[in-house]
Amino acid sequence: MTKTTDIPYKIYLTEDEMPRSWYNVRADMPEKHDPMLNPATLEPATREELEKVFCSAVVEQELNQTDRYIEIPDGIRNFYKMYRPSPLVRAYCLEKALGTPAEIYYKFEGNNTSGSHKLNSAAAQAYYAKQEGLTSLTTETGAGQWGTALSMACAFFGLDLTVFMVKVSSEQKPHRREVMRTYGAKVIPSPSDTTECGRAILKAHPGTGGSLGCAISEAVEVAVSTPGCRYGLGSVLDHVLLHQSIIGCESKIALDKYGVHPDMIIGCAGGGSNLGGLISPFMGEKLRGERDYRFIAVEPVSCPSLTRGKYLYDFGDTGKITPLMKMYTLGCDFIPSANHAGGLRYHGMSAVISKLYHDGFIEARSVEQTSVFKAAEAFARTEGILPAPESSHAIRVAIDEALKCKETGEKKVILFGLTGTGYFDMTAYKKFNDGEMSDYVPTDEEIEKSVAQLEPYNK
Amino acid sequence: MTKTTDIPYKIYLTEDEMPRSWYNVRADMPEKHDPMLNPATLEPATREELEKVFCSAVVEQELNQTDRYIEIPDGIRNFYKMYRPSPLVRAYCLEKALGTPAEIYYKFEGNNTSGSHKLNSAAAQAYYAKQEGLTSLTTETGAGQWGTALSMACAFFGLDLTVFMVKVSSEQKPHRREVMRTYGAKVIPSPSDTTECGRAILKAHPGTGGSLGCAISEAVEVAVSTPGCRYGLGSVLDHVLLHQSIIGCESKIALDKYGVHPDMIIGCAGGGSNLGGLISPFMGEKLRGERDYRFIAVEPVSCPSLTRGKYLYDFGDTGKITPLMKMYTLGCDFIPSANHAGGLRYHGMSAVISKLYHDGFIEARSVEQTSVFKAAEAFARTEGILPAPESSHAIRVAIDEALKCKETGEKKVILFGLTGTGYFDMTAYKKFNDGEMSDYVPTDEEIEKSVAQLEPYNK
Repeated sequence: MTKTTDIPYKIYLTEDEMPRSWYNVRADMPEKHDPMLNPATLEPATREELEKVFCSAVVEQELNQTDRYIEIPDGIRNFYKMYRPSPLVRAYCLEKALGTPAEIYYKFEGNNTSGSHKLNSAAAQAYYAKQEGLTSLTTETGAGQWGTALSMACAFFGLDLTVFMVKVSSEQKPHRREVMRTYGAKVIPSPSDTTECGRAILKAHPGTGGSLGCAISEAVEVAVSTPGCRYGLGSVLDHVLLHQSIIGCESKIALDKYGVHPDMIIGCAGGGSNLGGLISPFMGEKLRGERDYRFIAVEPVSCPSLTRGKYLYDFGDTGKITPLMKMYTLGCDFIPSANHAGGLRYHGMSAVISKLYHDGFIEARSVEQTSVFKAAEAFARTEGILPAPESSHAIRVAIDEALKCKETGEKKVILFGLTGTGYFDMTAYKKFNDGEMSDYVPTDEEIEKSVAQLEPYNK
Repeated sequence: MTKTTDIPYKIYLTEDEMPRSWYNVRADMPEKHDPMLNPATLEPATREELEKVFCSAVVEQELNQTDRYIEIPDGIRNFYKMYRPSPLVRAYCLEKALGTPAEIYYKFEGNNTSGSHKLNSAAAQAYYAKQEGLTSLTTETGAGQWGTALSMACAFFGLDLTVFMVKVSSEQKPHRREVMRTYGAKVIPSPSDTTECGRAILKAHPGTGGSLGCAISEAVEVAVSTPGCRYGLGSVLDHVLLHQSIIGCESKIALDKYGVHPDMIIGCAGGGSNLGGLISPFMGEKLRGERDYRFIAVEPVSCPSLTRGKYLYDFGDTGKITPLMKMYTLGCDFIPSANHAGGLRYHGMSAVISKLYHDGFIEARSVEQTSVFKAAEAFARTEGILPAPESSHAIRVAIDEALKCKETGEKKVILFGLTGTGYFDMTAYKKFNDGEMSDYVPTDEEIEKSVAQLEPYNK
């Protein structure tokens, strides 16, 4: 419970107060997560293997499980200064509308042109690539947030970028494609005839709308076969969580400044980078036994990797070309139903988050789509910000917890992550406004069938 | 020229530093502008006539030409706190990319869900309506920014809102419509069969895509014929400029804090509310002889009301139902070519801006669309923010002035208004990205013909 009463609506740190280091939560974990494996040998993936795909600094960070603080280079801090520190907002208006004694805070990461937190890692990945003398990056994008973020970062640091955009998304979201083009990126609908694997897929499945797995395969093929080129990934991996820890570090500094200590911290979880970033420094305190917090990961009922998945080695992609990772997964063959939170339609979960959940440091909750959009609407009308469907999963649980406080009279302090805005999600809002939203829940059989295929990798 | 060197990328005022009053620049004007006239009598419009359409507090402000400071009620300040103070940004990255010795600053008004500065007046108009016991508002919207802003404000203050959206816009921008619906507004494509004048227009012009003039007529008809209902307007009028003065007041406080004095202040000008708001307190200093500034209004060559229009009495709308205003105008029958800055496609100009321009206190410049999008692209790639086409008119001239400084070596200080973001303008960006943008310049004959029709009102 907070002692200070004079908390502004928005807490902005100064540039000087912006963290100078990322927080590497792995350093505090009593047990580290199991290593990535090469699927051909089932041996740990080596630095050399990873450096064919990613730039060296990023591989270094991926493998660093011991340094708690990793310095943010000035070049990245200066990029961050264009849109950070991001505001930590006291949701006075939402509290009032709910009539809750709880205090609600949210860290808002949507006030940049990419519209989400993805820019925090894009900036780092582009910066390091430039520093290492690379001339271009490749990546894939589905809904478009990550592709947009990396386009912005590459434009700034002077790198060429090729984005393989899932063909059906590229057709459904032409505006997202134009944003990337405006930032100078080359956007190629995937599968394409520009790569071997793209041509093979087109031959096998003429007229296919593509998939994220296929787009990853094309991007990686270009990265490993083009001189001066590497691949960038927007979630799941440990170095991405590390970059995203800027979210949690800023939140903690802002809250500490006002003597506020959250009782619970809530984030939506797709690949896990936003949640991992938000909770990192708080989790560090908990793991070191300095202060207790409840951490709640929120996922859609349609894609319940933590709440209904299994803790197994699995591929990171549906195309089965990545290393194997030990994680909570629905199986890489699992196809989530077409819900409207594209960023949460991922079969697996970050190895760090998975391990912390497995060891009992994180709770998980799954929520239905219609109830998520009800929360989004209530939030928009009271707090003014139109939230992304992904972020609205966290809003749903924050509201639920605040309403519990209303019943019990407890003045709990709730912090949640508002990862992004919903400007490019109006098709989903229209369905909700028209009362035509559906809530699909996968059957146990579906999940078991998909997970069963992982047996060869988990002997 | 600035003395301080430690200026952050973004200057955020604290909530306590946020202005407690709007700045009424009319109080400083050596000559006031001519009054609005009733077109039937050519006599000044009376308070009673105006109060049939607008709520009383707003009419009071519209007619107040003497009080320099008008207090912002706490209810509005609290709404402002959800998205204000807005950042004043030092464009370090743009300066570096241009290689200019000039200092460039911009006040960014796009970091709210409406995506533009329009919310500053929407908040005030909804607040006063609620205070006066009204239950609903009506308005019209073209591109959708104003409709979105008023939807957000009405949701917050608990008022019903009906938005008449130009039919062709409603079809072209379904996403804008959904944002308004998400905030609870009733959005009716105009012309509609819900009003007398809508039905008359539909009968006369079956299948018409509508116009802003027609949408205004429908909104005003509903406002004056519905108990507890009034009409809200998003630009042009003096009270709207007054509300927008929060932009300039915050800018001035932030710059003063760092001892920065702009040599020139640049804003795009459609109806004039953004420009008027941005320059108000600076203009006050100039009019009182305390400090000199250059003020530059930027408009599209396709709709050059200041640079090629005439200073005459004209209707505010194409439907000829509003009072007459003395302003620079291309004639209310002038149909601007379909450029991509919908907010600048207005035949006239705020009476305050027109008078200040007429008396030599403001300069005006018109710019071509392609060059505007070139500036927008350069800005996006260096400063990260994807600007609205409207705002990019100001960016164009700011860059031009900074490049002049590069030639002369002068370290001028440039401030411009970045009114909004371009997320809903990707169709325009696509045209630019595809090299298919056109630059239309109206002929002298077109303008003369349209202006000639104003003769009866300017005897």
